[in-house]
Amino acid sequence: MIRRFVFGSPLETDSVIDKPAVCAGELQYFEKHENVLTFRMGKDDIVYGLGENVRGINKRGWRYVSNCTDDPHHNEGTVSLYGAHNFLLIEGPGHCPAGIFIDTPAQVSYDVGYTRSDMLEIRIDNEDYELYEIDGETPAAVVKDFRGIIGRPYLPPRWAFGYGQSRWSYLSADEVRQVAAGFQGNQIPIDSIYLDIDYMEGYKDFTINRETFPDFEELVSEMRAQGIHLVPIIDGGVKAEEGYEVCEEGLENGYFCQDENGENFTVGVWPGLCYFPDMLNEDAARWFGRKYQFLLDKGIDGFWNDMNEPAIFYSGRRLNQLFAKMEDCVCRRHLLSEDRVPAETAAAADTDGAVSAAGSFEMGSPELTDTEERSQGTIIASAAAQEPNDLHVDTAEAAGTSVSSLEAADTSAGSPKPDDIIADGLRAADISSYYEIRMMVEQMEKNPEDYRSFYHHYRGEKIRHDKVHNLFGYYMTRAAGEAFEELAPDRRILLFSRSSCVGMHRYGGIWTGDNSSWWSHLQMNLKMLPSLNMCGFLYVGADIGGFTGDVTEDLLLRWLALGIFTPLMRNHSAMGTRRQEPYTFAHTDAMAGIIGLRYRLLPYLYSEFMKAALNNEMYALPLGFIWTGDEIARRVEDQLMIGESIMIAPVCEQNATGRVVYLPEEMKLVRFAGTVLKEETIVSAGHHYIPVALDEVVFFIRRHHILPICPGGKNTESADFGDISCLHFADEGDAYELYEDDGISREVTLKGHIRRIGPDAC
Amino acid sequence: MIRRFVFGSPLETDSVIDKPAVCAGELQYFEKHENVLTFRMGKDDIVYGLGENVRGINKRGWRYVSNCTDDPHHNEGTVSLYGAHNFLLIEGPGHCPAGIFIDTPAQVSYDVGYTRSDMLEIRIDNEDYELYEIDGETPAAVVKDFRGIIGRPYLPPRWAFGYGQSRWSYLSADEVRQVAAGFQGNQIPIDSIYLDIDYMEGYKDFTINRETFPDFEELVSEMRAQGIHLVPIIDGGVKAEEGYEVCEEGLENGYFCQDENGENFTVGVWPGLCYFPDMLNEDAARWFGRKYQFLLDKGIDGFWNDMNEPAIFYSGRRLNQLFAKMEDCVCRRHLLSEDRVPAETAAAADTDGAVSAAGSFEMGSPELTDTEERSQGTIIASAAAQEPNDLHVDTAEAAGTSVSSLEAADTSAGSPKPDDIIADGLRAADISSYYEIRMMVEQMEKNPEDYRSFYHHYRGEKIRHDKVHNLFGYYMTRAAGEAFEELAPDRRILLFSRSSCVGMHRYGGIWTGDNSSWWSHLQMNLKMLPSLNMCGFLYVGADIGGFTGDVTEDLLLRWLALGIFTPLMRNHSAMGTRRQEPYTFAHTDAMAGIIGLRYRLLPYLYSEFMKAALNNEMYALPLGFIWTGDEIARRVEDQLMIGESIMIAPVCEQNATGRVVYLPEEMKLVRFAGTVLKEETIVSAGHHYIPVALDEVVFFIRRHHILPICPGGKNTESADFGDISCLHFADEGDAYELYEDDGISREVTLKGHIRRIGPDAC
Repeated sequence: MIRRFVFGSPLETDSVIDKPAVCAGELQYFEKHENVLTFRMGKDDIVYGLGENVRGINKRGWRYVSNCTDDPHHNEGTVSLYGAHNFLLIEGPGHCPAGIFIDTPAQVSYDVGYTRSDMLEIRIDNEDYELYEIDGETPAAVVKDFRGIIGRPYLPPRWAFGYGQSRWSYLSADEVRQVAAGFQGNQIPIDSIYLDIDYMEGYKDFTINRETFPDFEELVSEMRAQGIHLVPIIDGGVKAEEGYEVCEEGLENGYFCQDENGENFTVGVWPGLCYFPDMLNEDAARWFGRKYQFLLDKGIDGFWNDMNEPAIFYSGRRLNQLFAKMEDCVCRRHLLSEDRVPAETAAAADTDGAVSAAGSFEMGSPELTDTEERSQGTIIASAAAQEPNDLHVDTAEAAGTSVSSLEAADTSAGSPKPDDIIADGLRAADISSYYEIRMMVEQMEKNPEDYRSFYHHYRGEKIRHDKVHNLFGYYMTRAAGEAFEELAPDRRILLFSRSSCVGMHRYGGIWTGDNSSWWSHLQMNLKMLPSLNMCGFLYVGADIGGFTGDVTEDLLLRWLALGIFTPLMRNHSAMGTRRQEPYTFAHTDAMAGIIGLRYRLLPYLYSEFMKAALNNEMYALPLGFIWTGDEIARRVEDQLMIGESIMIAPVCEQNATGRVVYLPEEMKLVRFAGTVLKEETIVSAGHHYIPVALDEVVFFIRRHHILPICPGGKNTESADFGDISCLHFADEGDAYELYEDDGISREVTLKGHIRRIGPDAC
Repeated sequence: MIRRFVFGSPLETDSVIDKPAVCAGELQYFEKHENVLTFRMGKDDIVYGLGENVRGINKRGWRYVSNCTDDPHHNEGTVSLYGAHNFLLIEGPGHCPAGIFIDTPAQVSYDVGYTRSDMLEIRIDNEDYELYEIDGETPAAVVKDFRGIIGRPYLPPRWAFGYGQSRWSYLSADEVRQVAAGFQGNQIPIDSIYLDIDYMEGYKDFTINRETFPDFEELVSEMRAQGIHLVPIIDGGVKAEEGYEVCEEGLENGYFCQDENGENFTVGVWPGLCYFPDMLNEDAARWFGRKYQFLLDKGIDGFWNDMNEPAIFYSGRRLNQLFAKMEDCVCRRHLLSEDRVPAETAAAADTDGAVSAAGSFEMGSPELTDTEERSQGTIIASAAAQEPNDLHVDTAEAAGTSVSSLEAADTSAGSPKPDDIIADGLRAADISSYYEIRMMVEQMEKNPEDYRSFYHHYRGEKIRHDKVHNLFGYYMTRAAGEAFEELAPDRRILLFSRSSCVGMHRYGGIWTGDNSSWWSHLQMNLKMLPSLNMCGFLYVGADIGGFTGDVTEDLLLRWLALGIFTPLMRNHSAMGTRRQEPYTFAHTDAMAGIIGLRYRLLPYLYSEFMKAALNNEMYALPLGFIWTGDEIARRVEDQLMIGESIMIAPVCEQNATGRVVYLPEEMKLVRFAGTVLKEETIVSAGHHYIPVALDEVVFFIRRHHILPICPGGKNTESADFGDISCLHFADEGDAYELYEDDGISREVTLKGHIRRIGPDAC
């Protein structure tokens, strides 16, 4: 049962495309006080959902903020990642499973038992929003109802289920060829190689760096002939550069976001100073989406959209403020070194954010150096130079006040005198200057004030960015997705994004951003999968091996053993980190074996993905969704059901040679050493310690279920998906519905594509 | 068997105090090539040790660097924390357990199967060091031999085993009184309240802020009357301030570290510009240690030494470099805005690290503002403003090169012209300037160059700091510890430190620094305990609840349930984070109950601690130290033996209502709900799922073992340690050796302090 409520005059987000009539009654599960919704949680309630966020499958015990953020340091303290996924579901004894979806492009904050362990509080930063309460018999039923109103998830081509290799960056066509050769020479299957920002000329969207990729078109077709798709990145900002066609067109047509005065707003991203295309403006979006044709024409059939939170390294105006402050500081320093400066002039030099008019001074005055030398080792009393403590605790929230208190301390020391030197020629005012500059530098990136300083034209209205912040990545990806429907009507194009919002799931998948080469992030990868599925995102994956930091061989092997079950299976790593291609490690065979197993499992994985997408179901499920009455199963955070037939329980701890697995019911253990089946054993319900070697993959088949597999291959093209055999824990009469299609056509229905197979029939 | 080797002419560190004769033979376990030692690890070898470091009890699969570092962001990628603990132990099939200790004050790097999973490589940053190879029948025997040569660990007074409450900072005497009242009003036992930097006047060591602590001496005695010890912090740097006695004395006597020219080296720490006392200089150390008398005289009997890696926020000379660079940038900006500047002059403005002599200019030129306005929304081509990618990936190692490549890009653009504006009045050179400033700011703290810029006088030699870096915290704490032997000969003084090195364990304990309110850090707390014990550090603990970040009630409860078993049991949190005192949460009773249980367990915990210290044994042991042949036990990373009788298995995951515990043998499960015994059940060997509620503590008693407990109390003074009763899983004839003393005398021996008790005798 879905009840829709409308508060105020909400903006249409197109997150929900199948809206029920507005409900006249009261909210049934939540109490509402203005923009705050509360729910009193029972001791054993579990809160599922919230898509891309840190911590557990059960979101209780932390707070989260839907505020798409470019954050390269995910940890347990993180409250915002790249997506805004405002659906959650409360399941527990004594009440129906109940879901809530907040449809708003603005920030939403969730306190899921953080402040008070029994209280769920949702705070919406806007008075205008739509709200959906959904209840049902089971958590799966609630998800299905919700998914029904937000529309069918994006469907990638089948080749996008193959293994992808990425790195920031493969710097040249030759390096791409070397990577391909690395896979081929080591018999490691592969379907795609990703191109990060360096394939572009000066990081400019829709350009090719012809110095490093002189024969780009040839490279694309050469790779395709080897079964490898090249997947280039597209960034959210367009470089401000005279003569750069995309920029010129955007300026000419007024397609860029502007400030309060109607001037194009400048931000620094990879290319240097950029403009943001107004992705929310229909004309601009259509124009931007059409630009992808530049690469489609070169044979490209897959893209990843990045930096579309949108990320801001700095804004032009903030950079100007920094320079003004630097002038102030330099000026103050010189004034203080001069005997004759009256206090008023020195104070004037302190004016914030503007170029000071304190007068001229001689740069590099030899007197200053002299003074510095003379003062070495001497001490002059000063009560001023208290350090702002908060700067040294990034997590402390009180940071905002410290510069002003420094200024106060500075002023309280009285008029600066030429001789108030502490040591090394440094004065209290210098320490203060340093912390002012430091704070400005630290607050340069992603500054909230910058997000309040530019505007969109959205459905005829001029709207300040922060009011619709969470739509940017969504509408960028939608622009591409809608363009592809026109530009490539007969085939699916691979498309996924870093930033997202519910609604975007119809146009592309996501990868879960800049994670780290940490075991805890392998665990987080697992935990995020079902949460994302609930919110409509099915084509998802994390950077296998971790983006930042240095991977170890064992971590990569274990991560691959999870990664073979994620729809997007991509190994990606950052510049400056240890090389992460599977063939760079000692046990290349083990890597090849686990990746090879992915290809053997593809008939099942692809089938489960497509059925989940077409039936509004989940591909990866928490155990509590199946065994709702099993108190232990409900709390399991490191095992998942993948589709209807198999339960996975990856080894997620370093140096572990096995792990304890909980079986809610009798299942069949299946052990693969790479692509080779090694063991099938029926295991009773309960906890079991299961040894799992680094080159092995162990999973469990449910009773009455069937797992269709194929012989695999070096890529999806060479794998024979028609040559099906079955693993099963089934009896005569049990059956599996295998979904089969050509893997590329856009017209996708279950009808005509389902083949029923029994345990013996394969 | 211990074999000692001496290479080159090592400095004496006093890490080892009972040195065997130098061995003439070859290394038996390690291959040595110059300063690199290697050991080929078997598949099932476990590497124990390395004290204070991240990751597992088994250190395999990562790299570590002994380089005492003030790092407030511990995560899986961290290679250096606050200590330098150069002992490790390899245990596995086919060879004796073998330990190695590198005795050097310089950096040592460990690659424990990071680069190659089977290779342990140790790299010493110095040609002069001593090396000890130790083997024995069991891992415990190897540790015991090693501990034998490094001397008896520091023994705190018994009251230091009580619960301590801390925060950065309790800002006034009144706030301290409120905290005490918070505990008393909620019947939560407590023995100590910690004073962080704000009790001092301007963060100056050995001063009292009389505005906020006007009646400090009265406060101390008032608290003592309530059974509460106040424990103030002492920092490693001394404020540079005229008239500040400690500073004046240090200057007068030449006790501060000096630069290459013999000038006192200035660094910024909490008080602003400071000098470092030369803790390695015997006279300076003796002087500094004697300074603690200032607080002893006020009734203080416990201290924590902080910032003694030593931490550096900035150095005076680096700050001057920043100001010079800022002048350069400001100057370049102005020069670029003037038509007539020849290229040579502009280039001169680029000179690094010195005040430019490029000539004078008018500050706040109205033309500049004009230009900025006119240029809005226009684009001028520039090939220069490539962003230095690496700045955006903190973990990337290649960062060093980006500024210079920026400079190159800048220069290649040719002579600056007045009109090369990209947008918003900003030029390519401005972007370059910004990244230069940003990099200087980012590299201001803990800059390696600063650690190479000052000197110690150590045993008659002038030695550059980086050569002896790891001794600073050790010698600061030793200075205090040795002073206490003279100043308080009849009683033990509580003393622990943030930075440490093997050898310091004889003078003080450690807390494990600025952790976070993360579940993974609760786990890390557990894993570090045995590693620290191996290196001699027995009086240890982590900041319970986590220092940075916001704790949740459940995390604090679970952390307390581990914390009651750590010798140092202190709750500490950072300014700006959520309040973390137990009485600030809803379930104060549960907090009081778990802390109360600590006091019930004290007869056992104190006894096990003292026996371990006096017998060179471990207080907290990995399961693999006891059940060496049990392959599952050897891999357990989240359970410990605490002393001889009990095994703990804390719940370390959020929202878990229990956990799987591995029992290597039949044991007796003991369940407490707070101080109340709820269950005693004999549990068979193997894996078991054990429910554990948030207010409960569950542990396991070994067969033939006895656990003496007492009735507890509101503090150690009021607890009657003579009123012993026993929990046990023992038969007639089994016995426990209870260590008892007055808890305060310095003269400590086993003789005369051991009472044998049987299961029924209590």
